Amino acid sequence: MHSETVEVRGHLIDSGVLSRVLDDILEYNCDYSIDRFEVGRTPVDESYARLTVKSEDAEDVDRVVMRLMAHGVNSTDPGEATLREVETDGVFPDDFYSTTNLETVVRLGGHWVPVENPEMDCGIVVVGERARTIAVSDVRAGDRVVCGPGGVKVVPLPAIDRSHGGFEFMKSEVSSEKPQALLVRQIAQQMRDVKAEGKKVLWVGGPAVVHTGAAPAMVALVEAGYVDVLFAGNALATHDIEAALFGTSLGVDLSQGRGVEHGHEHHIRAINQIRKAGSITKAVESGVLTSGVMHAMVTGGKQWVLVGSVRDDGPLPDVYTDVIEGQRAMRAGLADVGFAIMVATMLHSVATGNILPASVPLVCVDINPATVTKLADRGSAQARGIVTDIGLFLEQLALELAPAYRAGERPGSDAP
Amino acid sequence: MHSETVEVRGHLIDSGVLSRVLDDILEYNCDYSIDRFEVGRTPVDESYARLTVKSEDAEDVDRVVMRLMAHGVNSTDPGEATLREVETDGVFPDDFYSTTNLETVVRLGGHWVPVENPEMDCGIVVVGERARTIAVSDVRAGDRVVCGPGGVKVVPLPAIDRSHGGFEFMKSEVSSEKPQALLVRQIAQQMRDVKAEGKKVLWVGGPAVVHTGAAPAMVALVEAGYVDVLFAGNALATHDIEAALFGTSLGVDLSQGRGVEHGHEHHIRAINQIRKAGSITKAVESGVLTSGVMHAMVTGGKQWVLVGSVRDDGPLPDVYTDVIEGQRAMRAGLADVGFAIMVATMLHSVATGNILPASVPLVCVDINPATVTKLADRGSAQARGIVTDIGLFLEQLALELAPAYRAGERPGSDAP
Amino acid sequence: MHSETVEVRGHLIDSGVLSRVLDDILEYNCDYSIDRFEVGRTPVDESYARLTVKSEDAEDVDRVVMRLMAHGVNSTDPGEATLREVETDGVFPDDFYSTTNLETVVRLGGHWVPVENPEMDCGIVVVGERARTIAVSDVRAGDRVVCGPGGVKVVPLPAIDRSHGGFEFMKSEVSSEKPQALLVRQIAQQMRDVKAEGKKVLWVGGPAVVHTGAAPAMVALVEAGYVDVLFAGNALATHDIEAALFGTSLGVDLSQGRGVEHGHEHHIRAINQIRKAGSITKAVESGVLTSGVMHAMVTGGKQWVLVGSVRDDGPLPDVYTDVIEGQRAMRAGLADVGFAIMVATMLHSVATGNILPASVPLVCVDINPATVTKLADRGSAQARGIVTDIGLFLEQLALELAPAYRAGERPGSDAP
Amino acid sequence: MHSETVEVRGHLIDSGVLSRVLDDILEYNCDYSIDRFEVGRTPVDESYARLTVKSEDAEDVDRVVMRLMAHGVNSTDPGEATLREVETDGVFPDDFYSTTNLETVVRLGGHWVPVENPEMDCGIVVVGERARTIAVSDVRAGDRVVCGPGGVKVVPLPAIDRSHGGFEFMKSEVSSEKPQALLVRQIAQQMRDVKAEGKKVLWVGGPAVVHTGAAPAMVALVEAGYVDVLFAGNALATHDIEAALFGTSLGVDLSQGRGVEHGHEHHIRAINQIRKAGSITKAVESGVLTSGVMHAMVTGGKQWVLVGSVRDDGPLPDVYTDVIEGQRAMRAGLADVGFAIMVATMLHSVATGNILPASVPLVCVDINPATVTKLADRGSAQARGIVTDIGLFLEQLALELAPAYRAGERPGSDAP
Repeated sequence: MHSETVEVRGHLIDSGVLSRVLDDILEYNCDYSIDRFEVGRTPVDESYARLTVKSEDAEDVDRVVMRLMAHGVNSTDPGEATLREVETDGVFPDDFYSTTNLETVVRLGGHWVPVENPEMDCGIVVVGERARTIAVSDVRAGDRVVCGPGGVKVVPLPAIDRSHGGFEFMKSEVSSEKPQALLVRQIAQQMRDVKAEGKKVLWVGGPAVVHTGAAPAMVALVEAGYVDVLFAGNALATHDIEAALFGTSLGVDLSQGRGVEHGHEHHIRAINQIRKAGSITKAVESGVLTSGVMHAMVTGGKQWVLVGSVRDDGPLPDVYTDVIEGQRAMRAGLADVGFAIMVATMLHSVATGNILPASVPLVCVDINPATVTKLADRGSAQARGIVTDIGLFLEQLALELAPAYRAGERPGSDAP
Repeated sequence: MHSETVEVRGHLIDSGVLSRVLDDILEYNCDYSIDRFEVGRTPVDESYARLTVKSEDAEDVDRVVMRLMAHGVNSTDPGEATLREVETDGVFPDDFYSTTNLETVVRLGGHWVPVENPEMDCGIVVVGERARTIAVSDVRAGDRVVCGPGGVKVVPLPAIDRSHGGFEFMKSEVSSEKPQALLVRQIAQQMRDVKAEGKKVLWVGGPAVVHTGAAPAMVALVEAGYVDVLFAGNALATHDIEAALFGTSLGVDLSQGRGVEHGHEHHIRAINQIRKAGSITKAVESGVLTSGVMHAMVTGGKQWVLVGSVRDDGPLPDVYTDVIEGQRAMRAGLADVGFAIMVATMLHSVATGNILPASVPLVCVDINPATVTKLADRGSAQARGIVTDIGLFLEQLALELAPAYRAGERPGSDAP
Repeated sequence: MHSETVEVRGHLIDSGVLSRVLDDILEYNCDYSIDRFEVGRTPVDESYARLTVKSEDAEDVDRVVMRLMAHGVNSTDPGEATLREVETDGVFPDDFYSTTNLETVVRLGGHWVPVENPEMDCGIVVVGERARTIAVSDVRAGDRVVCGPGGVKVVPLPAIDRSHGGFEFMKSEVSSEKPQALLVRQIAQQMRDVKAEGKKVLWVGGPAVVHTGAAPAMVALVEAGYVDVLFAGNALATHDIEAALFGTSLGVDLSQGRGVEHGHEHHIRAINQIRKAGSITKAVESGVLTSGVMHAMVTGGKQWVLVGSVRDDGPLPDVYTDVIEGQRAMRAGLADVGFAIMVATMLHSVATGNILPASVPLVCVDINPATVTKLADRGSAQARGIVTDIGLFLEQLALELAPAYRAGERPGSDAP
Repeated sequence: MHSETVEVRGHLIDSGVLSRVLDDILEYNCDYSIDRFEVGRTPVDESYARLTVKSEDAEDVDRVVMRLMAHGVNSTDPGEATLREVETDGVFPDDFYSTTNLETVVRLGGHWVPVENPEMDCGIVVVGERARTIAVSDVRAGDRVVCGPGGVKVVPLPAIDRSHGGFEFMKSEVSSEKPQALLVRQIAQQMRDVKAEGKKVLWVGGPAVVHTGAAPAMVALVEAGYVDVLFAGNALATHDIEAALFGTSLGVDLSQGRGVEHGHEHHIRAINQIRKAGSITKAVESGVLTSGVMHAMVTGGKQWVLVGSVRDDGPLPDVYTDVIEGQRAMRAGLADVGFAIMVATMLHSVATGNILPASVPLVCVDINPATVTKLADRGSAQARGIVTDIGLFLEQLALELAPAYRAGERPGSDAP
């Protein structure tokens, strides 16, 4: 087992530095123990931590120690710097020290020498008694550069004085650059687990479920038993029913993939049909409504709560027009819910987040990062967010969870 | 054959009104002939058009005539309005006239009566000699409402005076709410067609191809022969190679789907490895690089042009650091290209758009609508845009085009 | 008066080409007359137009004729190409012909010669009997390049066959890159005009009015008489009142500009206070509420309609919880409205767009282009959109319209 | 001095919980001391913290203790719950306990009773020996609800097991809902301070500076001495020069605020003019270029570095076409820089972030949150981000810093 002892001083907790240090150690396949931790008693006091980083692999330890310097962490005993000669123009030795953008000193001949021109992702070249950063494209054969973490120390940034004005650091982990296919598989597994425990899966959905052409995938998920309860507004149900009755959904001809500008009156005519039937369930029973997501919910005996909003046309007869009554109906629908998934709706996602216990795992899927962020900002700390395309997401999820859908019974496929 | 003659007057061409009218007629499964068209000779003159709308189905004609009123189009001879009694509270007759938000008049007893409170998506209720809009939720049994397009005329908005200041109308067809799965199939077909003609498929890609975990799908597309030429920057190749060498890509552990914050030095170490080998091709030949997109390009004998940018680390030895030389290399790479697809890169997409003949069909795929818009705004009028998730898009495209990938040889699948 | 006759053939109307041609002529300070216009009688027939472009300035005519070629328009009689020698490496003659990305032919010695490698924004160099595009950085002294529009013709793209599938062209004018300060002045003038006519200004607002620190600017606009009616939800009023009572607004300490994470309970406590008082007006009368936007509305005797949504906490006692009743109240509030401005709310903007006659001018302001687009897509064709920062927009508007605010009575200014 | 002792157990550091707890205490005007802190020695061990919260104001202490419960923090000695009767339907007592969404227990008659239906932002009503959450709209006169923090405990969520797969929590502080006007004043003050210390202000800018009509404001800032060094690409300088020579900037007529579609050839003609003059400086000296940002830089003797990219037309003769040489020139331009501001450019912002020492304060301003996020994600931890409209931001900053601009010398103002 190889190990190295490192230390860091500063506002370690409120700045999040210590949290990032521990994260990095695990990411680099190393382990740690905290040997000493002195916490500042008051907001102005600095804290101090000393840790031992351990791994079976000496190179991993070296790599993580170099990595931790980006957070202002140094070895307690860095020793003397190792210098190696560059063999080829524009190429560093394999184990070159990769710089941070912090002020840095390097120990040469027993003295700490400052590194000139701090810049990240460079090497350190030593010429005589001076050291400076150098870009990989500028290094030349014969240059002597620092290798490994030995003999290098960084100077942490002074802590931000948080006691008076000054706007905040910005930090975000919201990103659409995540391996989405993997996330889909993880969610599918979570749904299987919840169903195996006898709990319900709650969906909260917006009309984009229909606009993106994902209604067939959603129907497959209902039929496969992964949609026990659905919370939505007037729009999802209306567009779904409009597509079932007229083959369009506010501006999209779903079988052709072509935009139809403002198909408004289909929309209001679909609502009028269901109002005439009396309810969505009666429209299914009387043969008016024969396909789509709401049809699948009715025939599968599933539960739904539709709550209206001020922008609604109609609305459908099933829609709660009083929002406080709608909230009460949603609360009643939470019984036995073990997992919640929110798809493409900010309004109903936040509404559900407001009433959902923190103990229910919750995934929010939207192409707009703002929706996902808003949910977390409102206090639903258990929310996990995925920024992705709704249509493709539901298609993939249906392929994972619905055996019939997987077997090629996809609408639009060219089966004989 | 049923038909109806309609007319419209105004700035029909520069406002785009006539274009939308003709679109709508086709969308409603009707046909048209233009009987008369008087174009304004100067910018201030109005134009006038008279059209006949035709269909086998009388109801289609009625529906499109009602629809066209939203554009200020009226029947030349609308006749008298048809009134029907409402049978049930909150439900219109099936063929109710659905209003626009334009000023409207209705012919009752031989007189044109103005409709009070213009509002879209309502009905028109007639009480005595007066007519007004009414929402579906407010209509009551016994109310008499206008049905069908007969006896109704709208008053078009006055043309915007475009000769002096006043900001522009806003209009957009950029949307993430499109049936994406269908679009993927259309693109796959287009690629098959181009290959069948002996032409090349050009890809322009950004690093999100790797960040989103789509590199395996991309590799499958290369191996299936659908990537003849690749234009990219230092980032795509570096992150691909970084993933191949270290299993990470600037912040994402691809096998686990977990975020790794700032994996910078993997990045610069990967670049250093390839610089040491001399080039990407040499790194493949010497066994340093054994997987990933660039590896597939090398082993498949495909062509690529990497052009650098000012934010690059390194860069890789294959990267053109002089952007004008890079442009020349890209121009040389356009020979025999019959289809171009741009994925997740604004910089290289615009650069390619700049040099691509308008005769080459071009699809731009990005999760950010701004990238797609920017390309069209810069003059690449042939650009078609898809706002979607890159990872799922490439996964779907590979499933369509790459038989091996389809057969389940997906990384991460639980094959024995 | 200088003039040139040009012609164009194709699907001129439904493609929008003719509209863009006429636009460009006016933009280049030229005038036009349409000499001949043959419209295709059926959807598959092409149209043909011949126009005369006129200006006092011969150079303007030349420039616009070159410009129109990007749309496939050619001179009826282009004559022979003019060639000029390049004097300096990397510099074109002043009047060089700037290429489009369409296929192009150039008339040399009485023959039409195709231009090789079509690429936009290049020159055309002639070597012997061949012509090809050349980038400005590649041109060399002594090269002969085509100058002026004479002797050049472009080959328009074939019309898109719109009669069967194939996804649509993408086009967008939504952009945040507009001269915003100018737009603010235009809106201010429009508001002054509406007030001078004795009409009302309707505002529709979201909570970002408060979150962005713009409440003082909004108060100034109320006091200056530019807010006659306000449509909003529970959130705007609650956050405004929360800021008045506690100095915070869901996560932002407004006097310091620092983020406060999840200030939830301030929020629910503020609502409870107003519920205790009975209404917002009673809270002002009893001295509980002494500042903010709602306070200014009450003391100024202005009108407001607050309609709730399913995500509301509380809500405030003034809020309509039944959305259909809320719609009715909003309809009643439209009387005498001559101008509507929507700020930072998608829900209430679309709701208002649904009920607003097309004859009322309407501006939609949001930092998110999607909100603006959505409004136009829903049928509010009269909507003009501005993508900008709400806080700075309202600050600027208040500076334009509110003399007191202009005089430096800004909260936070360092007046003695 | 009032105080309360609280405690929390769990993964306090790596989850960021402790950091948020300390933040909240300060936000509520309280102080703290850490009485005990036991840190888990290994990644799987939990930590434990005991703190004393202090304030002059007893109510502040109560409020923050209630607040901290959202993070799973409890009083060490919560005592018995205080119940108060509701006086009015739908109104809580002033000091009601506002719930979190965590599982909660309340001490009644010496026993800990679980609160049924955990939901955030509710009260707790006690009926007999049972307690449950209740929304403010559902509470009735006579109901007994829990008041103050006494007698309430929450059950923290179990720590996320971070050692194996499972996607990450999402968290973001990126927001456009910040009091922007205040931020502008803070930045202005920071620039004044830096200049007073004899240091330089570095600007990094994109073409939107010109597109948004903010060039006059930028000119005012140059003239007032707040722009010492400018890093940009070909686009900013070209559009600025195009506006100076032709009055347009790629699609916008700046004096009218109207969109001009694709003004491409103005663009390439402007570049050709400067290439003819030899350089921007020579174009100023020879009287070709007489206004705009670059003109102000030349006449003020300021320093700039323009580095090209692969999408450039031309480029201008001052532009580095080799990006590695461009990076070297940028490094040389960093001498004596004490503050950096990045406006509306992702490419050059990241490029500058790459080479800037962490000790230089850095602000990034963009209407697109992704640009700001990307910069922080790339390792520029000192970056502060503002999501706002560039045009209005620069207008406001010029009003703060440039006395001449403030005095009304704004282009477009109606001065006599």
